[in-house]
Amino acid sequence: MICLAVTFQVRPGAEDRAADSFRKLTEHSRAEPGCLMYQFHRSPTDPRKFFVYEQYVDEAALQSHSNSAYFARYVHQELSSLIESSDLVKYEPI
Amino acid sequence: MICLAVTFQVRPGAEDRAADSFRKLTEHSRAEPGCLMYQFHRSPTDPRKFFVYEQYVDEAALQSHSNSAYFARYVHQELSSLIESSDLVKYEPI
Repeated sequence: MICLAVTFQVRPGAEDRAADSFRKLTEHSRAEPGCLMYQFHRSPTDPRKFFVYEQYVDEAALQSHSNSAYFARYVHQELSSLIESSDLVKYEPI
Repeated sequence: MICLAVTFQVRPGAEDRAADSFRKLTEHSRAEPGCLMYQFHRSPTDPRKFFVYEQYVDEAALQSHSNSAYFARYVHQELSSLIESSDLVKYEPI
């Protein structure tokens, strides 16, 4: 299993549009057979801070997610102008 | 629901003892009725970097976890000497 912990800082004023794209991304991701978990969150104290926790069966499942048409649309197109910074960390469960 | 994303940097040489305590902490935490998810991870590229993703039904469930005897033992006693730094972020799912 491969897990990702990704933190986003969204540009001021772009929070709602980003949240919308994150929700669409969630729908598509959860439909992937190799995606075991995909949960977006928002910080209750910093409304521009979002976090997603993801689990994939293996590297191929993660690649299938990253190379999908929906990923290109929501991440590379829609979200790219809404995100100020992001930090992705890959983990293995213990 | 309340979610926690906690990252730990373990002292050099303390990795295995810390991983052992994290596993015991996991067993106890998952047994809590209000704990929906409790998963520890390790970075495949930095063996001193650990991460736990937690979900609780509500604030009371989180407090029950934090105030438990096992939390005092493993976090405040065993792990306190093994952890170099930690970063806890509280989130709400969207």
